[in-house]
Amino acid sequence: MNYYQQNRQTFLEGLQTFLRIPSISTLSEHKPDIRRAAEFVRNELSAAGLQSELIEGNGNPLVYGEWLGAPGKPTLLLYGHYDVQPPDPLDEWKSPPFEPSVRGNDIFARGSSDDKGQTYILMKAVEGLLKSKGRLPVNVKFLIEGEEETGGEHIEEYVKSRPPRLKCDAAVICDTEMFAPELPTICVGLRGIVYGELHVEGANHDLHSGVYGGAAPNPLQAIAEIVTALKDRDGHIRIPGFYDRVTPPSSKEREAWARLPFDEIDYTTKEMGARQLVGEPEVPLFERLWARPTFEVHGIRGGFVGEGAKTVIPARAVAKISTRLVADQRPDEAIAQLKEAVRKAAPKGVTAEFKLIHSAGPSLVNPDNPFIQAAAQAMTEAFGKETVYIRSGGSIPIVGVFDEFLGIPSVMLGFGLPDDNLHAPNEKFHLPNFYRGIEAVAHYLESLGR
Amino acid sequence: MNYYQQNRQTFLEGLQTFLRIPSISTLSEHKPDIRRAAEFVRNELSAAGLQSELIEGNGNPLVYGEWLGAPGKPTLLLYGHYDVQPPDPLDEWKSPPFEPSVRGNDIFARGSSDDKGQTYILMKAVEGLLKSKGRLPVNVKFLIEGEEETGGEHIEEYVKSRPPRLKCDAAVICDTEMFAPELPTICVGLRGIVYGELHVEGANHDLHSGVYGGAAPNPLQAIAEIVTALKDRDGHIRIPGFYDRVTPPSSKEREAWARLPFDEIDYTTKEMGARQLVGEPEVPLFERLWARPTFEVHGIRGGFVGEGAKTVIPARAVAKISTRLVADQRPDEAIAQLKEAVRKAAPKGVTAEFKLIHSAGPSLVNPDNPFIQAAAQAMTEAFGKETVYIRSGGSIPIVGVFDEFLGIPSVMLGFGLPDDNLHAPNEKFHLPNFYRGIEAVAHYLESLGR
Repeated sequence: MNYYQQNRQTFLEGLQTFLRIPSISTLSEHKPDIRRAAEFVRNELSAAGLQSELIEGNGNPLVYGEWLGAPGKPTLLLYGHYDVQPPDPLDEWKSPPFEPSVRGNDIFARGSSDDKGQTYILMKAVEGLLKSKGRLPVNVKFLIEGEEETGGEHIEEYVKSRPPRLKCDAAVICDTEMFAPELPTICVGLRGIVYGELHVEGANHDLHSGVYGGAAPNPLQAIAEIVTALKDRDGHIRIPGFYDRVTPPSSKEREAWARLPFDEIDYTTKEMGARQLVGEPEVPLFERLWARPTFEVHGIRGGFVGEGAKTVIPARAVAKISTRLVADQRPDEAIAQLKEAVRKAAPKGVTAEFKLIHSAGPSLVNPDNPFIQAAAQAMTEAFGKETVYIRSGGSIPIVGVFDEFLGIPSVMLGFGLPDDNLHAPNEKFHLPNFYRGIEAVAHYLESLGR
Repeated sequence: MNYYQQNRQTFLEGLQTFLRIPSISTLSEHKPDIRRAAEFVRNELSAAGLQSELIEGNGNPLVYGEWLGAPGKPTLLLYGHYDVQPPDPLDEWKSPPFEPSVRGNDIFARGSSDDKGQTYILMKAVEGLLKSKGRLPVNVKFLIEGEEETGGEHIEEYVKSRPPRLKCDAAVICDTEMFAPELPTICVGLRGIVYGELHVEGANHDLHSGVYGGAAPNPLQAIAEIVTALKDRDGHIRIPGFYDRVTPPSSKEREAWARLPFDEIDYTTKEMGARQLVGEPEVPLFERLWARPTFEVHGIRGGFVGEGAKTVIPARAVAKISTRLVADQRPDEAIAQLKEAVRKAAPKGVTAEFKLIHSAGPSLVNPDNPFIQAAAQAMTEAFGKETVYIRSGGSIPIVGVFDEFLGIPSVMLGFGLPDDNLHAPNEKFHLPNFYRGIEAVAHYLESLGR
């Protein structure tokens, strides 16, 4: 047994400790947990033999750790995040979100797959090489952030300042998924995002729907009118100019996607638990998910949603909305288009304004890059199957920032699975992927050091 | 000074005690407060000299009190309600909703106008006659309920059983408003209501909008699509058949409405605090408010509405919706039309169902009825101005029930004012109307006894 096989139980216990910290970055009452999680990561990196510290700034601390004892070898920036999504709705969890529960081959907890489990893979891969061989085959710089789920301003500000200590040859990002169990996967494209709030105001106080109904503007109805004006029933976004920069995938990419092992009925009914798929009917599924922009409503606040009946026409209402962007859309342009479309779609009697919370550009990585080729080779060897290239519909804003400000490509090695319930109740991580992922990353570092 | 003038301070203190009880009928945690409010009313009626008791049944207790010492004289059923609306949004109240605050000529508290202040007018008018003269000029039967704000099933069940003790000649309902300050007003028409929840389900668990956006059904977007399908941007309801039974007001009524003293700019900007009025552009304002059905969204639950960003596509969402009905629409037919329209408007990938919470028919009273004529005369004398006849856009379901099951007309004497902020923060009641209302009701009873 090698170091990795000997220490599986220790790795699992460490991960459980990490998962017990409710480091929810979108809720300010969890600030102390955010710091506990950052300190946990720093302590683990120190214990593994790296020089590590917290980098403070506007927002949640970054954890930095480095080992630079391989002169002449490549330097990798290892990225993950220690913050997690809120766990609600709480009553749908089968075990409490911050009390990790191992059932069968899976560990259930908020953050298990996104992204504590995957971040821990990077940490344990490096620890294993240092503990078993006393050195690493390449130089590494960890940069683990705590605001990925809420916009990541701190890391962006820091990277945009181009600090000399971040100089490196490529980033390795462990925050995506495998296309299917046992199928080694590298992600080469991400959607961007524009997330914000749609604020609608009608009268300056709540009104009785009996007394004023028929004359009073209703901000909830106005939100409905705006969001249906912005997206039609077939999923086409009706924001003028929104598709102008959308670049379709190449025919080679489309053909590769068509060859991916995929059962649409299983995907629909088991993975998503849906009756049928929706969205632009004329666009194939993977293209809808990976290469087309979307518009979604995430929540609507305002009026009365308690038990029973309240006949109120609320003075104001707020919708959380987002759009996902694809190459070559530009966030600033998309925001301007969205703002203007919201303004135009507002019905009589209300004001409507889009207020940005965060945004990130889409990114596409060239799979011919040698760091990606080496990763694909290491994954193929670790899993015994040809590595596939996919894109992700999600957004990892830092990929674009690394590209623009550090001039480095990102290698997205994913060990999550499609049914991991990211951002949803009963999030899980597949433990065989956890253990094998640690070995695959170690293998990758060794191959880059040769 | 008569009894009424001597006791104003005592009346005010009694009202304040009544208002301090948070008897919110839509929230089950306030059940004990509901009972405290019912007992307060019963104790006051007993102290005034009536035989009184609580009538228990399914739901909140009814308070019954009678004085039947005027044989040969008419018998009146005096109706009000001791329950109130929830006070949220709490942070918009200038003084706490259940700590009555007198500022200038107004008393601010939840329920001050709707309907504790007005119910208390009936109670104090009768008390004054009994205390000062030892007897009443007519027979009275109080029936004060505790579920008006949440559907009123208990009183309906009770009245529908046609109990012999409710035999009487007319009902007096004190739960409406004066058209303008100092302008004596009788309400002769009410809208009905259908209130319920629109339940929409997409996938069987929450989904990540990055990973699944473009293929996943979004119940919040579906609610937006349904409610915009059911009502167009000009306020026309698009439910097939919904207007078939709508009876327009007579030309005589339209002309009387056109003569009401009214400043539309003041109404829009001061009373409503709105930028402009909305609704069917081809229908005059009072007709929109009093004689046309409406469709409103009161709140939408589902997804994420907390601080920050959560990129969730919720599995399900619920909208609180209602329609107001006008003569001669029938609630059962309207509910069936609404259910069918919701089903048809549901987009691909979701199920949508309307679940009824409560309903009530519209009502129209003939103003030539002698009880209404006497009330108009008494009001004219108390306020020194010709009494006007209006309708109300709100719903008082019991009026239709009294008509159908007791065969009696309802006299709607209102002492609220248009800017009382019913169902909204900073609800108030105009104290001069409170004191003068007590005397006007006493005057009315005396005139009926002659």
